[in-house]
Amino acid sequence: MRKEISRLVEIDREHVLVSHIESVLSWDQETYMPPKAVEERAEQLALLEGLAHEKLVNPEIGSLLSALGSTPGNPLGDSGLSPEERAYLRALRRAYDQATKLPADLVTDLARTTALGQSAWVDARTNDDFDAFAPFLEKLLDLQRRKAACLGPDKPAYDVLLDLYEPGSTEAGIAEVFKSLRSELVSLLGKIRSRPQVDDSFLFRACPESRQAEVSQWLMDVVGFDKERGRLDTTAHPFTNTLGSDDVRITTRYIQGNLASSMFSTIHESGHALYELGIEPSAAFRRTKLSEAASMAVHESQSRLWENIIGRSAAFWAPNYSRLASLSGAVLEGVPLDSFVRAINKVEPSLIRTEADEVTYSLHVILRFELESDLISGRLAVKDLPAAWNAKMKDLLGVVPKNDAEGCLQDVHWSCGLYGYFPSYALGNLYAAQLWDRMRETLPDVDASLRRGDVSPIREWLREKIHKPASTWIPGELIERATGSALDAKYFVSYLNEKYSRIYGF
Amino acid sequence: MRKEISRLVEIDREHVLVSHIESVLSWDQETYMPPKAVEERAEQLALLEGLAHEKLVNPEIGSLLSALGSTPGNPLGDSGLSPEERAYLRALRRAYDQATKLPADLVTDLARTTALGQSAWVDARTNDDFDAFAPFLEKLLDLQRRKAACLGPDKPAYDVLLDLYEPGSTEAGIAEVFKSLRSELVSLLGKIRSRPQVDDSFLFRACPESRQAEVSQWLMDVVGFDKERGRLDTTAHPFTNTLGSDDVRITTRYIQGNLASSMFSTIHESGHALYELGIEPSAAFRRTKLSEAASMAVHESQSRLWENIIGRSAAFWAPNYSRLASLSGAVLEGVPLDSFVRAINKVEPSLIRTEADEVTYSLHVILRFELESDLISGRLAVKDLPAAWNAKMKDLLGVVPKNDAEGCLQDVHWSCGLYGYFPSYALGNLYAAQLWDRMRETLPDVDASLRRGDVSPIREWLREKIHKPASTWIPGELIERATGSALDAKYFVSYLNEKYSRIYGF
Repeated sequence: MRKEISRLVEIDREHVLVSHIESVLSWDQETYMPPKAVEERAEQLALLEGLAHEKLVNPEIGSLLSALGSTPGNPLGDSGLSPEERAYLRALRRAYDQATKLPADLVTDLARTTALGQSAWVDARTNDDFDAFAPFLEKLLDLQRRKAACLGPDKPAYDVLLDLYEPGSTEAGIAEVFKSLRSELVSLLGKIRSRPQVDDSFLFRACPESRQAEVSQWLMDVVGFDKERGRLDTTAHPFTNTLGSDDVRITTRYIQGNLASSMFSTIHESGHALYELGIEPSAAFRRTKLSEAASMAVHESQSRLWENIIGRSAAFWAPNYSRLASLSGAVLEGVPLDSFVRAINKVEPSLIRTEADEVTYSLHVILRFELESDLISGRLAVKDLPAAWNAKMKDLLGVVPKNDAEGCLQDVHWSCGLYGYFPSYALGNLYAAQLWDRMRETLPDVDASLRRGDVSPIREWLREKIHKPASTWIPGELIERATGSALDAKYFVSYLNEKYSRIYGF
Repeated sequence: MRKEISRLVEIDREHVLVSHIESVLSWDQETYMPPKAVEERAEQLALLEGLAHEKLVNPEIGSLLSALGSTPGNPLGDSGLSPEERAYLRALRRAYDQATKLPADLVTDLARTTALGQSAWVDARTNDDFDAFAPFLEKLLDLQRRKAACLGPDKPAYDVLLDLYEPGSTEAGIAEVFKSLRSELVSLLGKIRSRPQVDDSFLFRACPESRQAEVSQWLMDVVGFDKERGRLDTTAHPFTNTLGSDDVRITTRYIQGNLASSMFSTIHESGHALYELGIEPSAAFRRTKLSEAASMAVHESQSRLWENIIGRSAAFWAPNYSRLASLSGAVLEGVPLDSFVRAINKVEPSLIRTEADEVTYSLHVILRFELESDLISGRLAVKDLPAAWNAKMKDLLGVVPKNDAEGCLQDVHWSCGLYGYFPSYALGNLYAAQLWDRMRETLPDVDASLRRGDVSPIREWLREKIHKPASTWIPGELIERATGSALDAKYFVSYLNEKYSRIYGF
């Protein structure tokens, strides 16, 4: 290895270490920190954030990258380097450019406006007052356009923003994929709505927290979560956080009258954690930027594959259902397996994205993608957002919000500067289904294995194809290498059609 | 405030902040961290330790201290500064000198030898093989002498080491105090041993962990621990750790057949936590070196006052015993209050310091003080330590270890470079009794208040006299200001005589 690369790794590892330390503090803040500690904790995090920034913008990184031939136009660097080394240079160049290309006054303005915007959004949502939030949204959009102009002066603003979360993606590419997805989902939803609704009332019987906690711990074991390298805790909003390369922690929440909520949160977050714990480039690049997940959408593909494709399948529950019924106490008494499987797959259009089922979820995302790309480009004026939102809700889901609080004010994302982030959620579904399709082709025994209660072939296939390479390939390349074809919505569409025609009988 | 002081505070606060971040990581490591995370956690802590050191040895601190007239010989600085400012300069000068006066090769040698020494001690204790540890002990003593020579070239080595833990203390001063303490304790122990032993067998009845946890939570409330500024967790060895000025966490351990162990650990650690949470110099010096506890012995005075003087008193249990009996289930069924109070005050000479009762504990400490001062000065050769230890055990406690593992190899301290630290444990007992004596004089209602279940006058008196000033005074001054007289063992001796003559009836 050339000495410039060794030195880059050395500098980079300190940055990764500081980020992990920040994660320890954030995790603690969400789980166990006493309430009055919050003020000093903010100062502790600010100090670490400053230190991380200092390490990331170290001009030595720029010089070393240049010396290795990596430039913004040719991030992979000298062609004589190994593919893994070149991928590393690309990952580091990306992080370095994102951290250094924004002028200081813009960074400050983004930070201040985001803080104000978030607080304004909280009030606006509470009071159902879109007009109070509108000026902040204008300002936030303007700053995002300025940010995009600094990061990618020759590209359309929304493309630059999309690339921040899903490297290599463009508005045109996503629009193309979402176009067929949109119509297929609307059509599938129509068929489902023409059939009698399934009964899921028993899922809302009371189940004590201690029993739900036992179920969650057991499900972690079932999917093969290594508890020597992670743990489960309880928070208001479930999340996964990486506190170290051998320390990935997940959380769930227990609602007494909703066993399914904690169960599927646990499986979902376990999917994220299996990804983080499976990352394994060659030892030379452990704990560097190459050891970070390929993208947010690839992350979602893992959580959703485990939660929905595996965790809501009849094959998964066939060997596991009796254990679930005994661990959860009276909730599932007298409920046969097939009623349970139907109940956990109930489809019903609703107003709130985070509560949506597997079929309608991506429609919520498509709506946001269409609106935010129009907002960034200026095709849609901020004042017209509420009406546009409601019209699209009617169009896509057949439901209309009673007010903006449950309409265009429902998500935190835009108030905290996340534009171009929403598509990742739907791309995750598409990637997951495409991976699943390929997996069943290459591992013909996979269904039988699920029915035997053995998920290890699935986990190991994902580890080899997706987890281990981490950021060695950009997401498009990664999916193509894993599945043999470029991203296509057809796999997700046929997966849904096959599954829901069985559930709803059409 | 002079701008040099403001600048010192600014630099110092970053150091304190980094130390608190280190505490978050250490606390997590002891409580919730998954086992395989340990390797990266060590690197995270090393990075923070390096950062803390860098901030502490910043030469700007030296220049600013000099500019304010603070020198090693006159740490308080210019006489025109306020008393609090001068106290601050002294605290900072102390920390700065300790961090900068040791040459780099000595620091490295100390770190390496301590690491090797600790691992050698673990093996030596396991194999009861003092000879295997002896060469490390030689080397460790030699390095401590070199360290003392750097820090205080004009003073005897052991005085320099004592001053590290108990500022202002000297071997001669402590020897003087311990001399009378030694003979009084030996005489008291003789009287106790001539009386029939109390029965404490019921304390070892099984009590489920969940009940013990409820008892601990309740005891924290009883002593007035603010749970919005701290919390209780479970670890193998109980401790208190300050993760922020509003975040002080304690731990305890639950042994099914030993309710008293978790109870008194919780009260003990709560005493430490009340100190940390009560610290309150003027706002200008929050989260600086002035906001650190006055010393290890003052800290022990707080934990021991709560654990022993309050927590093992008949007055404390009079209003609380019935609640304890109901929370703890069957353990105390049929046990009257006075039997319970006698049981938790049972005195019995034993071989192990950490398991010693209130009367014999200080004798274990005196033994270590006498031996370590002889080792440092060279009056005692390492090879003669085991025999000297056993002779003193017989002399002071009337018991003799069967082997060195339960003799001179029992404590971790010497193997990890803590010399001059042991006296703090006994000084803590003496300070506590002296404070208690003074409190009862100035608050004549204090016993009645305890018997009403109200400990707040005690807590508030300690807060005013001891907690708030933090490091404004060195321990000797602090105790003299709080009690009106210099340290004297007589208060502890008469407290013990009065109490144990009642318990044992002589």
